Amino acid sequence: MRKAYIVGVGMTKVGKFYDKSIRELAAEAVFKALDEAGNEKPDAIVVGNMLSSLAEQENLASLIADYTGLRGISGFKVEGACGSGGAAFLAGYSLIASGVFKKVLVVGVEKLSERPTPATSRGLAWAADADYELVHGVSFAGLNALVMRYYMSKHGVSREEMAAWPVLMHENALQNPYAQLKKKISIEDVLKSPVIADPVRLYDASPLSDGAAAVVLASEEVARKLSDTPIHVAGLGNALDSTDLTSRYELDRLLASKLSAEKAFQMAGVSSKDIDVAEIHDAYGVTAAISLEELGFAPRGKGAKLVYEGRFRAGDRPAVNPSGGLKARGHPVGATGIYQIVEVVLQLRGDFPGINVGGEIGLTQNLGGVGANVTTTILRR
Amino acid sequence: MRKAYIVGVGMTKVGKFYDKSIRELAAEAVFKALDEAGNEKPDAIVVGNMLSSLAEQENLASLIADYTGLRGISGFKVEGACGSGGAAFLAGYSLIASGVFKKVLVVGVEKLSERPTPATSRGLAWAADADYELVHGVSFAGLNALVMRYYMSKHGVSREEMAAWPVLMHENALQNPYAQLKKKISIEDVLKSPVIADPVRLYDASPLSDGAAAVVLASEEVARKLSDTPIHVAGLGNALDSTDLTSRYELDRLLASKLSAEKAFQMAGVSSKDIDVAEIHDAYGVTAAISLEELGFAPRGKGAKLVYEGRFRAGDRPAVNPSGGLKARGHPVGATGIYQIVEVVLQLRGDFPGINVGGEIGLTQNLGGVGANVTTTILRR
Repeated sequence: MRKAYIVGVGMTKVGKFYDKSIRELAAEAVFKALDEAGNEKPDAIVVGNMLSSLAEQENLASLIADYTGLRGISGFKVEGACGSGGAAFLAGYSLIASGVFKKVLVVGVEKLSERPTPATSRGLAWAADADYELVHGVSFAGLNALVMRYYMSKHGVSREEMAAWPVLMHENALQNPYAQLKKKISIEDVLKSPVIADPVRLYDASPLSDGAAAVVLASEEVARKLSDTPIHVAGLGNALDSTDLTSRYELDRLLASKLSAEKAFQMAGVSSKDIDVAEIHDAYGVTAAISLEELGFAPRGKGAKLVYEGRFRAGDRPAVNPSGGLKARGHPVGATGIYQIVEVVLQLRGDFPGINVGGEIGLTQNLGGVGANVTTTILRR
Repeated sequence: MRKAYIVGVGMTKVGKFYDKSIRELAAEAVFKALDEAGNEKPDAIVVGNMLSSLAEQENLASLIADYTGLRGISGFKVEGACGSGGAAFLAGYSLIASGVFKKVLVVGVEKLSERPTPATSRGLAWAADADYELVHGVSFAGLNALVMRYYMSKHGVSREEMAAWPVLMHENALQNPYAQLKKKISIEDVLKSPVIADPVRLYDASPLSDGAAAVVLASEEVARKLSDTPIHVAGLGNALDSTDLTSRYELDRLLASKLSAEKAFQMAGVSSKDIDVAEIHDAYGVTAAISLEELGFAPRGKGAKLVYEGRFRAGDRPAVNPSGGLKARGHPVGATGIYQIVEVVLQLRGDFPGINVGGEIGLTQNLGGVGANVTTTILRR
């Protein structure tokens, strides 16, 4: 297959932007990314988004292309729930690797503040199975609570150990100018925060966020012209699991994450030991713990314990979520997978404006649903 | 780029299926398509769908993959409003052309009967611009009424001439066992049918439909093993226009259709004169008229007049919409673009169970919104 490179990145701050429309958010990220890529018109746009339907807007590819002056190019929206960004990146990569397109813009955008919180929370549950799960009234936090309780019980993980992840993420986000939650918290704060769905407490969960992030992908030939620091998309893997939790083989695993990582590692010819920096999908603390295990960064059942012991900070290998992760950078659902890629590109270029850990090989892992649609990428300087 | 072939197709009847869930509809088409393609497990699934959110279900790729026994493969959903099917086909094609995937399943599915008609009609309007258009209360039929009035006035087209399209489509659909509307109608019937949004009458508009259609795409090497009658994806083009009508350069044109056709013709090395059979996007009669012009099948302003004069029937070149089109085969929104491809594949193979016009080179044209996201494909025996 033809090689693909990232030659431009851009993102907005993550937060609640009641005064910006979804097209304005997207445009801010798009213009930054195109600026870095020599402001040449891309051939196509792929939009990662999950919930613009809550604001009665579909057809986002034409909406954003037109608003950013790109009328006439090709494009479509990609959806894979909270994994929409990663899946959109796979689609954008394929457009380049096919040889049909030379420059492709991939933009993830989400504006969850369009609707009141109960409507948005209900929308997020559309990532689950409407017929098998939602009909019983379970929320998305509720599903993750089941996983968290099972994980803690099976592997003997204490509530304090589970609390170490949000504490580290809030610490990292303090230095990230794009992060939503800029507030140092303690393990005690986590344990005292309100229960959302027992045992998930407020500080175990990522916030509701608005934001947009964009990358410009280019073929090898074009990349060398447009950028002095192109980042190579060395590996890419996506895998699907059942949408509903009841059909899973094991409740304390994310097998689609494992599979997608295997595909990405194989394509890149590297292993988890080679990763310098990673941005992983910590929608809930337990998601992070299991993800660390499926990615080969921790033995099974030890993900949360290793975090509690001080691993995965800047200086460790890999450094995980120096951005603050979904937990504290924020989780603008369909944009999250692209935020992760932008952040790792900036790390590898030495340009990340927060904790810059540098490195040569980076990884991103983006989940849709409770691990129903997972994309792993390996990026290389 | 690597060549891609269609090695299996399948579809459900189009209609209202209150007793079938969206995953059951999809599975019916998927199993038929996989059956034709030797029942080998595909590497990826791309789902074309616009409005499953109306039934509170996203994450369709994992939902359908799991239900059809394909857990673990890669996939995502593609959305481009009513053009979701065509855009999904572009994504699926790119996965093959990239060389990363060898067998890709593309399934379009829509179940509009999930919700009452007013809710569904409102959902369909999400293809338009929520901030610039819907806020004024306009419906999707209303937007097309504006185009129809302008087209008739500018080009001196009579109400009778506009009525010839639905009459032809109902006639064609009568012989298509998969069609939704099986009823012969006259020009007088069209002119007497209730006004939906003046001058659009009931019989000018496509119905609300449920349905699913699927194709299996394969690389050249795999295609030769799996099928004796692989159909070559010779050309493919997609283009975006503004989502809102007010920003268009000309209200009686579909410039994204023109652009997407130019890309597809160039890639295939053929012109509109070479097309034997076409399935085009006639969500409204006026959409068909303008589409015939943008595709080069009729001079500007003459599309509807040529239909009234008896062109585009079986025996003519090209024969257009022998299936009965969106108008009478039905319009299961996100599935429509895949239905068109399935139908043209069957025509070229000589297997279409309705009016079989045969031919060597076929074309499909699928629109999202009022021509905001358009995909044209050229298929070759």
